[in-house]
Amino acid sequence: METNGTTPRDALAAVTGVRLTALRDAHPLVQMITNFVSMDIAANVLLAAGAAPAMVFAPEESPDFVRKASALVVNTGTLSAAGAQAMEVATTAARTHGVPWVLDPVGAGATRFRDDTITRLLRHRPTVIRGNASEIIAVARLAGLTQDAGAPRGVDSAHETWQVEGLATTLARHGACIVAATGAIDIVTDGHTLIRLANGSPLMTKVTALGCALTGYVGAFVGLGGDPLEATVSALAAYAVAGDIAAEQATGPATFRMAFIDALYGLHASDMQQRLRLG
Amino acid sequence: METNGTTPRDALAAVTGVRLTALRDAHPLVQMITNFVSMDIAANVLLAAGAAPAMVFAPEESPDFVRKASALVVNTGTLSAAGAQAMEVATTAARTHGVPWVLDPVGAGATRFRDDTITRLLRHRPTVIRGNASEIIAVARLAGLTQDAGAPRGVDSAHETWQVEGLATTLARHGACIVAATGAIDIVTDGHTLIRLANGSPLMTKVTALGCALTGYVGAFVGLGGDPLEATVSALAAYAVAGDIAAEQATGPATFRMAFIDALYGLHASDMQQRLRLG
Amino acid sequence: METNGTTPRDALAAVTGVRLTALRDAHPLVQMITNFVSMDIAANVLLAAGAAPAMVFAPEESPDFVRKASALVVNTGTLSAAGAQAMEVATTAARTHGVPWVLDPVGAGATRFRDDTITRLLRHRPTVIRGNASEIIAVARLAGLTQDAGAPRGVDSAHETWQVEGLATTLARHGACIVAATGAIDIVTDGHTLIRLANGSPLMTKVTALGCALTGYVGAFVGLGGDPLEATVSALAAYAVAGDIAAEQATGPATFRMAFIDALYGLHASDMQQRLRLG
Repeated sequence: METNGTTPRDALAAVTGVRLTALRDAHPLVQMITNFVSMDIAANVLLAAGAAPAMVFAPEESPDFVRKASALVVNTGTLSAAGAQAMEVATTAARTHGVPWVLDPVGAGATRFRDDTITRLLRHRPTVIRGNASEIIAVARLAGLTQDAGAPRGVDSAHETWQVEGLATTLARHGACIVAATGAIDIVTDGHTLIRLANGSPLMTKVTALGCALTGYVGAFVGLGGDPLEATVSALAAYAVAGDIAAEQATGPATFRMAFIDALYGLHASDMQQRLRLG
Repeated sequence: METNGTTPRDALAAVTGVRLTALRDAHPLVQMITNFVSMDIAANVLLAAGAAPAMVFAPEESPDFVRKASALVVNTGTLSAAGAQAMEVATTAARTHGVPWVLDPVGAGATRFRDDTITRLLRHRPTVIRGNASEIIAVARLAGLTQDAGAPRGVDSAHETWQVEGLATTLARHGACIVAATGAIDIVTDGHTLIRLANGSPLMTKVTALGCALTGYVGAFVGLGGDPLEATVSALAAYAVAGDIAAEQATGPATFRMAFIDALYGLHASDMQQRLRLG
Repeated sequence: METNGTTPRDALAAVTGVRLTALRDAHPLVQMITNFVSMDIAANVLLAAGAAPAMVFAPEESPDFVRKASALVVNTGTLSAAGAQAMEVATTAARTHGVPWVLDPVGAGATRFRDDTITRLLRHRPTVIRGNASEIIAVARLAGLTQDAGAPRGVDSAHETWQVEGLATTLARHGACIVAATGAIDIVTDGHTLIRLANGSPLMTKVTALGCALTGYVGAFVGLGGDPLEATVSALAAYAVAGDIAAEQATGPATFRMAFIDALYGLHASDMQQRLRLG
């Protein structure tokens, strides 16, 4: 990212502010093949942010639909054989038509079925991979980059993001993609630069599918075009700052969820300038 | 609608007030085959209003179940081949048993798969079709009533409702059904009378599946019996007035959603008398 | 339950307080095969309570996954043939690996398809059955214990829990399981002892899937180990007390839902001591 004589923090805040406005102006159409737990919140997050989410997964219509989309987001939660087939068809079409796509490898490492599905999806070369630290380890293992099993117990992370900085960088370089691992500190890398973001609230882990919704939000930012690293970092920065704002108003996970969506809806460049913290 | 010496606005407000009470007394059972994004909010809207929603779609039990329902609602969002088959079975059973059914043609015009499915459903003659303006154009095209493609980019409308008043009327007459197109101004027609409703809030487009939930709400009103035009107009009027009430309390889409459901729960005839506005 | 010289009410309050803390410490992994309406709220309820929900149902990965879970929860809402097959595979695996599982027989008695599915699931001997009064009657009929059809119109109960105390006891003894029937008064029995709980709010019936989420919550408590009767009673007691707290802050079903999840998040032993009421 160019810093134009300002600090990297100020430069990122400014870039993110520009993208927040661009999102509301462009209403990018984001096709999502996401898990059933996340559908409500992911769609609401994208609408609040100014994007146009569309949950379209049938193999009969995905290739038709993805051509009109600004980005495709694929999430392996609540996976089924039919769902895996839908993802295969949609990601193939995305690559054919040059539509950027974002992978959220929910549950990577948890079962053989997830791993086999994710391995097949990696062949279609995602533009961005967004997961928690354990999922990034598991994906790196599937890509042959580590022996570390990384397997979490369920779908939550058993690792901190600082533990996967090296692997994330290797995975990004190997896949020629952006890798983002989110947690208390979020990290984003293109295999060369690595950025750490420090905003956010522990309450974010107490609202289901807020990570899945983030992946949709990354899709919206990437769908605006421009540098995918910058798009991904901007999305994570904005999302975490909205988390800070919401945490100030929350008495628990449900008030947090409500305040968070409203914060995304009202988020402005000035919020980024005031609140953004690098890790 | 009879006006009994009052203005049409006052008459509609009174009729809607009566139906709001009837809904809470009768708890009509509304079977919904709806998309996965809308399940939570549609069920919560119907429960808040006093109806008894049941999300039942398996072909193995739909024909059994629909006989006990006051109305069936079918929504083509997040469509799959299995879902299309479920809709075929359920709407066939609804017609056999004389149960009124409401079609929400989500994504009509967006893909061939949606269009083929909707074309088949139209053969089972819905009692009401409720969509946005672009969807109504697309359905009219599938019914052979226009060459206008009408196709929106995704699942959002690319048209205003005033642009489809003529087509909606033609479609209603052709299908011997009620057609409702919702937007900033809602229109409802039976092919002869056309009513315009002006309440509602732009925030309604920032909450996912609020239109799908409205279609469920229409199903509840139609399930009470009586004139389907009056039932549909009443449902749209009450829903939009609840939107006005919620907008006064909202700071964004998430607070709006919460206030909206509570507003539906507490909505009374007096709210209709005070707030209803025809377009 | 041992009373240690105190009243049964105080003893239950104390036991429940201990389990609330244990849940936050142990984060039990609860695999849920639940209906699509309930996924968002069930996951959010479990996260707020301190558990780790995982919505995993594919037959390809269930047997792998269930071995790592502390409990499995199976819910027959929005049933499909594929879903029934997933439940069969998962409950078989749960029995094989000694993982406790909880059945929520949504819609029992409503259609032949539900009844056939539930009959097959009963063969895998659930640890706990949690339903409304009508569903408990229907399950008892499927187990050959009554001729009473019990069939509700839709998925809501047509009976009060006092009407099923005898049948619940018989069913619990017959199945060597815990049976819980929830309503204005909740009852829980192991076939020998029967406990009545009087907390809760009528608003709980106006929020969709709050019963399904309760079944998940029971799964989390059972997953902590110990006596399943005590675990089930504790879960129902805590849930209903959270309902009391939320009702004090609610203006309708949507504010209730939000306050309820936050109440579960903040629920402490002192709340149980102050508020628990036996029926």
